[in-house]
Amino acid sequence: MSLRRAGPPRITRADDTHLLQVDKRPFTRGKTEMPQERILARYAVETPLSLEAAAEAMAGASTATFVDVPGLTDRLRRRVATSVERIIPGDVVDAPGLPGARGANAAQQATAYRRGEVVLSFPIEGVGTNLPALISMTMGNFFALSQVSGMRLLDLELPESFGRAYPGPQFGIEGTRRLAGVHGRPIIGTIIKPNLGLSPEQTAQKVRQVAEAGVDFIKDDEVMVNPPHSPLKQRVAAVMRVINSFADRTGKKVMYAFNISDELDAMLRHHDLIAAAGGTCVMVSVNSVGYMATLGLRRRCHLPIHAHRNGWDMLTRCPHLGIEFTAWQKLWRLIGVDHLHVNGLGNKFWEPDDSVVASIQAVMAPLFGGHHIVPVIGSGQWAGQAPQTFSRAKTQDLIYLAGGGIFGHPGGAASGVMSIRQAWEAAEKDMALETCASTHVELRQALEKFGSLRS
Amino acid sequence: MSLRRAGPPRITRADDTHLLQVDKRPFTRGKTEMPQERILARYAVETPLSLEAAAEAMAGASTATFVDVPGLTDRLRRRVATSVERIIPGDVVDAPGLPGARGANAAQQATAYRRGEVVLSFPIEGVGTNLPALISMTMGNFFALSQVSGMRLLDLELPESFGRAYPGPQFGIEGTRRLAGVHGRPIIGTIIKPNLGLSPEQTAQKVRQVAEAGVDFIKDDEVMVNPPHSPLKQRVAAVMRVINSFADRTGKKVMYAFNISDELDAMLRHHDLIAAAGGTCVMVSVNSVGYMATLGLRRRCHLPIHAHRNGWDMLTRCPHLGIEFTAWQKLWRLIGVDHLHVNGLGNKFWEPDDSVVASIQAVMAPLFGGHHIVPVIGSGQWAGQAPQTFSRAKTQDLIYLAGGGIFGHPGGAASGVMSIRQAWEAAEKDMALETCASTHVELRQALEKFGSLRS
Repeated sequence: MSLRRAGPPRITRADDTHLLQVDKRPFTRGKTEMPQERILARYAVETPLSLEAAAEAMAGASTATFVDVPGLTDRLRRRVATSVERIIPGDVVDAPGLPGARGANAAQQATAYRRGEVVLSFPIEGVGTNLPALISMTMGNFFALSQVSGMRLLDLELPESFGRAYPGPQFGIEGTRRLAGVHGRPIIGTIIKPNLGLSPEQTAQKVRQVAEAGVDFIKDDEVMVNPPHSPLKQRVAAVMRVINSFADRTGKKVMYAFNISDELDAMLRHHDLIAAAGGTCVMVSVNSVGYMATLGLRRRCHLPIHAHRNGWDMLTRCPHLGIEFTAWQKLWRLIGVDHLHVNGLGNKFWEPDDSVVASIQAVMAPLFGGHHIVPVIGSGQWAGQAPQTFSRAKTQDLIYLAGGGIFGHPGGAASGVMSIRQAWEAAEKDMALETCASTHVELRQALEKFGSLRS
Repeated sequence: MSLRRAGPPRITRADDTHLLQVDKRPFTRGKTEMPQERILARYAVETPLSLEAAAEAMAGASTATFVDVPGLTDRLRRRVATSVERIIPGDVVDAPGLPGARGANAAQQATAYRRGEVVLSFPIEGVGTNLPALISMTMGNFFALSQVSGMRLLDLELPESFGRAYPGPQFGIEGTRRLAGVHGRPIIGTIIKPNLGLSPEQTAQKVRQVAEAGVDFIKDDEVMVNPPHSPLKQRVAAVMRVINSFADRTGKKVMYAFNISDELDAMLRHHDLIAAAGGTCVMVSVNSVGYMATLGLRRRCHLPIHAHRNGWDMLTRCPHLGIEFTAWQKLWRLIGVDHLHVNGLGNKFWEPDDSVVASIQAVMAPLFGGHHIVPVIGSGQWAGQAPQTFSRAKTQDLIYLAGGGIFGHPGGAASGVMSIRQAWEAAEKDMALETCASTHVELRQALEKFGSLRS
């Protein structure tokens, strides 16, 4: 048998978004008896076989048996076996989304690929509450199966035992608002740029300007951790000197998310250093650090964890492969980050607005009845996106990050911050930005410089 | 501006493997003066803009500056700036590999997408030797850029300072051979199946059968860690009782890779438990545990780390997105795993043989002049793949995992193991399997049952 790399997909219909569409209906568990807790996982699948055969391959891969084992009774098998709960057929296309799938006739390239959704359930008895085992079970070898030409995890439903086994967020929106002293409006933040090259003293100087401009929140860039030109220890000392003295003078303590992404020991050491200096937030690039080290930090930290998702797009940008944010963000809320990046409307990146809105909604939806965290809106943001963000996300419980929208404002950074606050006030009152701008010069200048509200 | 999800790619030429082809030439560093260590990264890029514009967007994203900062001198900028080292133009195609790319005219869908390779270099001064910062720099927001419709990291070249900052493998092939007592041939291993459902005593019973059949190495399945029906502590006690008594009796100590994937504290605790019971290997699902917790284990472990790569295919199966194994495996060797899964020839999964061979070669190539680890060959393996694996990978310094190829052998498991050893002996002598089978009944039975050698 020779495997050949499949060509690019040629879809038979105009609708190529099928594999990205998330079914918002709640999981139904079919007719299977479920005497114990079960983990549910929903996938978009594409296969040259039947959807039933693909689903069976998935179920088989997760509890594979190739020998008869004396003493492995049917009762025991049932206790650990994966069940196919539901199959929802979709389109049929004439070329595969991913290379390497093999049809029933292995010698020939298949000519029809069936798309659909498959819901599996796994008894918790199989993996217990071990999180790496859960990840390996639901996001492991399924992506490697030759029975499929598309495999995307759409959603996960975890039983209560997982909620009890992991800490969840420690601060969420309430704790973050309390520490930042911001209520009734979004927490307005910015990033220290340039990413690289500033000394600790230069960074602190920038922080002073930004604090005086009125921002509530500042974060390090994701590639700025502990380089020779800005050792974290000195950066923390220099920045906290400015923040603490600004707080003494004005009563406002700006929240600074120091990027401590590192080995676990170092993260804990730096966390303690930041807490001792009066800092109120730590930042972690969660994909670059990984699940278990972030959890190790959460187990011992006393500050909100600001989760930066850089690297995330590698897991989601191919519509035929990977995972949806809806599923992924549940793992991080379980682990217990407090803030999670979700991109922004009209962003600079590839992601469409609908996807950003779905991410905000996913983060806001209760998990285990709570586990509320703060969506972090960023990328190309200025005053202009406030009305649409508010009308679509229906919340002000968020961190709203702007760079050029603050520093590029013709009236200076303070006017930039003010224009964003004015825009959010207008959005909350359902007032058009143009109307609000007629009495608010900062917003008017922002609209003139950055263009009007996106339609 | 409205973003629309792009349709599927329609490639203008038959050659769709462009983005997967790894250029084996060594990096050249162009004419740029490099007074300090630099990190080199090579990408396959597809863009509706020019390749130069895409490369500039990448360089800009990694050291973005949107304000003039007093005191940030040109000298300092040079010390931290990303350089575009090389651009190698490739094909032009008429539809994007990934959704969300925007051409020069944002209102219109582009009609031409340029493919090519881009080599960037980053001065080590920018990130120091912080591994998460390196990962965020080279595998972070590049995948999110709207300037590209394809983004794949092909290779990384790390300066010596990284080699000094991280432990690297502790055992590699020599240490593993010493502990397993296997020399001059592949280490033959198997997986305990079924994955789930066996009690510790049933697992130990299986281990006894498998040890008596002559295998050198046994591993837990990736979803089997510490579930209620097989607590790790009891599994270690039961399995090591069998392995130690078999070793006392025969002088052969089978290496068992216990899956300890978990929070770092638990991994260290379980590692100590296994070492105390006389165990000689621990296994980690590295994607499910993450970079920094695996490194935390490596910093304190005294046993070889068997790295299972489940979940890897999510990062690589889409040819337009993600990373090549060549780049990824360097991170794990730096961190210091000892064994790393590479799939196998004629595997059950989607991956073509050429890709498997490239992975074996990548793992065998020196890193920092050494850092040799053991490629783990598995999935659908039996005696039949030995000649081709040997002739293409040119090594017997590997772990060769078989399941059905051992337990499905008509003569029983011992004959299954024997058939694999005979096949590797034949391969080393450059003797056809059929010739060897004429005097070796176990190999003959394997060929009769599992089919002849793949052509």
